[in-house]
Amino acid sequence: MWTYPSTWANPEKKDPMKPKLAITMGDINGIGPEILVKALARPDVQELCEPVVLGSARVLETARDHAPLCPPATLVTDFARTVLPAGSIPVIEGPVPIPEYHPGRLDPQAGRCAVEWVKQAVGMALARKVAGVVTCPINKEGIHLAGYDYAGHTELVAELTNTRDYRLCLFADQLRIVHNSTHCSLIEAIRLVKADRIAVTIRLGHAALVRLGFARPRIAIAGVNPHAGEAGAFGREEIDELRPAIERCSAEGIECSGPHPPDTVFLRMLNREFDMAVAMYHDQGHIPLKLVAMDSGVNTTLGTPIIRTSVDHGTAYDIAGKGVAREESLCAAIRLAVQFAEAERS
Amino acid sequence: MWTYPSTWANPEKKDPMKPKLAITMGDINGIGPEILVKALARPDVQELCEPVVLGSARVLETARDHAPLCPPATLVTDFARTVLPAGSIPVIEGPVPIPEYHPGRLDPQAGRCAVEWVKQAVGMALARKVAGVVTCPINKEGIHLAGYDYAGHTELVAELTNTRDYRLCLFADQLRIVHNSTHCSLIEAIRLVKADRIAVTIRLGHAALVRLGFARPRIAIAGVNPHAGEAGAFGREEIDELRPAIERCSAEGIECSGPHPPDTVFLRMLNREFDMAVAMYHDQGHIPLKLVAMDSGVNTTLGTPIIRTSVDHGTAYDIAGKGVAREESLCAAIRLAVQFAEAERS
Repeated sequence: MWTYPSTWANPEKKDPMKPKLAITMGDINGIGPEILVKALARPDVQELCEPVVLGSARVLETARDHAPLCPPATLVTDFARTVLPAGSIPVIEGPVPIPEYHPGRLDPQAGRCAVEWVKQAVGMALARKVAGVVTCPINKEGIHLAGYDYAGHTELVAELTNTRDYRLCLFADQLRIVHNSTHCSLIEAIRLVKADRIAVTIRLGHAALVRLGFARPRIAIAGVNPHAGEAGAFGREEIDELRPAIERCSAEGIECSGPHPPDTVFLRMLNREFDMAVAMYHDQGHIPLKLVAMDSGVNTTLGTPIIRTSVDHGTAYDIAGKGVAREESLCAAIRLAVQFAEAERS
Repeated sequence: MWTYPSTWANPEKKDPMKPKLAITMGDINGIGPEILVKALARPDVQELCEPVVLGSARVLETARDHAPLCPPATLVTDFARTVLPAGSIPVIEGPVPIPEYHPGRLDPQAGRCAVEWVKQAVGMALARKVAGVVTCPINKEGIHLAGYDYAGHTELVAELTNTRDYRLCLFADQLRIVHNSTHCSLIEAIRLVKADRIAVTIRLGHAALVRLGFARPRIAIAGVNPHAGEAGAFGREEIDELRPAIERCSAEGIECSGPHPPDTVFLRMLNREFDMAVAMYHDQGHIPLKLVAMDSGVNTTLGTPIIRTSVDHGTAYDIAGKGVAREESLCAAIRLAVQFAEAERS
């Protein structure tokens, strides 16, 4: 078992049952370090979890200029031997050399570190040393220049956990959107509109909401075509693939409906008619979510054996290092990871 | 020239230059009649235009229960001979028998009337008897049962005006979205992502905004694939088709940019970074618009030789006849038609 000392600044509030979360810094030259210190400075976040950061201790210290209330970093190489000073945040740097900190600079070495930190964090979660993983943004160009071929965190985490059936799910307030496909061309996304695959998407979304405490979540399946195909006039995927998937899942006892016209289903979910929507392609789900919750969306991977949540924004090189980036999305990601972790424990 | 007497209830405010608009009632069994009387009861709408309704005088009178301030209807068969009582609204019923008024009932004859009223209204606009056409919702199932094969108003108006290059454009506050395609399957919409067609879409959107008074509208072209294709990793349409179209239009002096990631471009437009977005398919534009402005969106057809605007919602049979439907979208459609008409006159 993972046994690093609990060291929050406010020991009387310390809850030994607080879940431990591995939080990756992401690309050091993006906004990851500053949103990380801002989030860890917040009492509500400190109450929720015990973090261990996978990232650069030095960069974290530099970023603390933007959030002096963030506890200081303590570099940990060996938990058994390291005595963490009271009120410090353990930071694991890992074996890959960390480059100079240059906010806004695209650096393949920063991409390499970001990927390695995710690998370490996932390893810790698989070994049950942490309850879950929360990730700060990586830069895809950076990780590609570093020689990795991942489309993003989702695919990386799936590979590391040897997961075949996984789905990206976005959360923001009333919006909960699980995607039948994500990082592929739109034409490929249409090819993935198959009854078997859609049924898996529905089941994964349903299971996640049940874990989060919904007794009988109402799941709306969006069509792929305009007006959900208008009875076949604008495409047959709704008739040939979506309806069979919905019927199959309904027969399994899942409360799912549709296919619904895509242009109103998200508004209806905002109005609490549904608890979750199943989106047929990346932008069908991402357009409404970004519009409603640009700063507070959370991205999570369903179907993996570990809990993994993430901010729902990029590295934002253009504002990195300026201290203006908002930590809301990261805080929401931490909260969701804690919710999943507590559900797992109970 | 069209010379029916101007007869608004408030003669001292009467502006002889107010544009005349043909307003179609749409499907009588939908919410068309009630939103029509609610809109025509509003002083701001009365100030803006002189309406002539294509619809049922009797249904209009019945609907006035929901908006007693709406001027009464006067059935007109021959404008040269009809003396309109002061403060009444001219109504043309046309040659097709009007069925019984049954709010919420799907009736092919109501569909037939709705189509014929649009045909008459477009004929009046082509003959310059009215400055433009504003349409209330039709029910697609109804018009199909009546034997017509139109996907919607847009296609009907395009056919009636013999227009080949036309585009659906949605307006709502800060959002102005012109669509490269609309009523077809998503896979067909991807096939229509071709440089020539996109250039036409950009030019039509640009021309519309220039007419509305934008000196140099900033037009954002959305990608078709996630992240606008991520440099070809998720599809090549952005590289092969969108970029050439954007370059061509830029060379013509149009301020256009992109292809932009579809999931943030609409938020950026809301934040006034762009004046218009070009959407690559129906739902890419309709999802954000419905989310931001469910009740106040306006739908217009660009490229036709006549001005045509429409409500951006359906017949809503479920609430028809109850007087609860909101007239905002119709009022916005009237305002936009007047804006276009005044631009044409100046």
